[in-house]
Amino acid sequence: MLSTTGDPLPSWNEGSAKQAIFTYIARVTRAGSPDFLPPPERIAVFDNDGTLWPEHPLPFQAAFAIDELQVCIARQPKLVEDPMVQAALAGDLARLLEGPGYAGLMQLLALTHAGTSVDAFRSRVEEWLVTARHPRFGRPYDALTYLPMQELLRYLQAHHFKNFIVSGGGVDFMRVWVERVYGIPPEQVVGSTARTIFELGAAGPVLTKTMDYLFVNDKGGKPVGIHQFIGRRPTLCCGNSDGDHEMLQYTTINNPRPSFGLIVHHTDAEREYAYAARSTSTGKLVEALAAAPSRGWCVVDMKQDWNTIFATESLMADPVPPPDHQSERKV
Amino acid sequence: MLSTTGDPLPSWNEGSAKQAIFTYIARVTRAGSPDFLPPPERIAVFDNDGTLWPEHPLPFQAAFAIDELQVCIARQPKLVEDPMVQAALAGDLARLLEGPGYAGLMQLLALTHAGTSVDAFRSRVEEWLVTARHPRFGRPYDALTYLPMQELLRYLQAHHFKNFIVSGGGVDFMRVWVERVYGIPPEQVVGSTARTIFELGAAGPVLTKTMDYLFVNDKGGKPVGIHQFIGRRPTLCCGNSDGDHEMLQYTTINNPRPSFGLIVHHTDAEREYAYAARSTSTGKLVEALAAAPSRGWCVVDMKQDWNTIFATESLMADPVPPPDHQSERKV
Repeated sequence: MLSTTGDPLPSWNEGSAKQAIFTYIARVTRAGSPDFLPPPERIAVFDNDGTLWPEHPLPFQAAFAIDELQVCIARQPKLVEDPMVQAALAGDLARLLEGPGYAGLMQLLALTHAGTSVDAFRSRVEEWLVTARHPRFGRPYDALTYLPMQELLRYLQAHHFKNFIVSGGGVDFMRVWVERVYGIPPEQVVGSTARTIFELGAAGPVLTKTMDYLFVNDKGGKPVGIHQFIGRRPTLCCGNSDGDHEMLQYTTINNPRPSFGLIVHHTDAEREYAYAARSTSTGKLVEALAAAPSRGWCVVDMKQDWNTIFATESLMADPVPPPDHQSERKV
Repeated sequence: MLSTTGDPLPSWNEGSAKQAIFTYIARVTRAGSPDFLPPPERIAVFDNDGTLWPEHPLPFQAAFAIDELQVCIARQPKLVEDPMVQAALAGDLARLLEGPGYAGLMQLLALTHAGTSVDAFRSRVEEWLVTARHPRFGRPYDALTYLPMQELLRYLQAHHFKNFIVSGGGVDFMRVWVERVYGIPPEQVVGSTARTIFELGAAGPVLTKTMDYLFVNDKGGKPVGIHQFIGRRPTLCCGNSDGDHEMLQYTTINNPRPSFGLIVHHTDAEREYAYAARSTSTGKLVEALAAAPSRGWCVVDMKQDWNTIFATESLMADPVPPPDHQSERKV
């Protein structure tokens, strides 16, 4: 349950991670503090997959694309002969990411994400969120956000931070639901993008999705995306994988403003997943995690630091959100 | 002078343009109005050159690039032999825009805007704004914003509109000064962009400007840029040229939400410029202006509708801004 008085982070257990968050926020928001940050400089960036919601057994957008692929196959049955389509249907992400330029993944995205109007794409994502269920938890994907991170988003908002999602996922996929689910408006989403084409048709303006000028907002692309979309250096950054390493560096290394880096470490196989110190895509050690102690980044141990994992667990315990929480999310 | 009580648009003369603005705002913000817009949907987009400040004798960023070119020539004197460099030095914008892909302009931008860190570029823009003077008005370029449009920006802000600049100019050029000059934060600027390169050097993270993956945020590119950066359809759009025609269409044609389009028509050769119904780059009739009556777009006649043109005129008449204006701009 989201607390509106007292502890703003009730689903965080007492410990060094929770304390580090409180210490940083007090340092930069208390009037008269030598490290006071003017509100416009309070820019917080959050990775999404694995940081605000799970990324297993597949990133949720990949699950969407595979479900959409079934629709494409129903229309063009010959597609099943394609080895990359077979890899996608088998959920073989490693195969899709093989080779230069992630050829398989690009083919999957081209089939399922391009050639459609942005309005039609939005409707498909909305429909999918209503009907699809996570294979392990049996709930809609957007009911699986992490309650502790939802509390952190709101705690920062209350301290005049502007929260941005900075994800490798596609902006058109995320913008459909981020406002409803995180209280983050679509214009505060940085993600992977490709150009649309504008046409004025008989029924009005149409923007059609393409795969042209694809920008992959991951790894070194994240600081590039932050600069392109936000144009200010963040002061707070939360991530969980090597895809977030460069944005953690960009936020915290030699930043003239006081900054804070946080890594969500997946240590809880029972309640969520444990993939510890290994990167999901390469199998190598997660460099960001290895660098955390020397960089002063706060490492969150999910098993130890979080007493509740999913936001829906609290909603089930208390199905009617308190009225002020409601209004906060709607504004 | 910016009024804080009474008429929110004092530099607008009474007339149909001013009335149309008041009518639209009342319609979409009055509680209980059938056309009420929830605040998150109040997205206003503004062209910059020719809409918020002049674009003559050259767009101001072109004036900056030409001044920077002189610095390049001092370092590499052979550059003066290049015909495009000569065209730039002569202020021959038409020549720079000739041929496919604006080859001359791209060369000028590559010389003066690429290969530099974003921090160094920012410093050069800041310095230029302090030292450079407009050839006709003899003032710093950023002292030449239109007071009536500044009033409109603030009037919309007071009614919970989120104002975005959507300009053909470069985001890195505009973000340096938009917050100070318009009260618009850098993350609310959509413009032409190219990708930067991220590196972690010995002195910390560095983002270096390139000309790669150039996106020209003009004409049909404006709705594309709006979708990519904002991800919502605007409900209010102000422009002045054919570069803004598509974004006016995107904002107002078959928009399920009540919308408003406005065109600034340059009719005042004495106080500013008159270039009436002709496009500056092609010499053709401005299609957006021709379409205005049938589309219901409000056309502002600068000579007739504005009693003051430049924001500095009011500052000169009253050099100390009222304290609440000051604080409004700083937040």
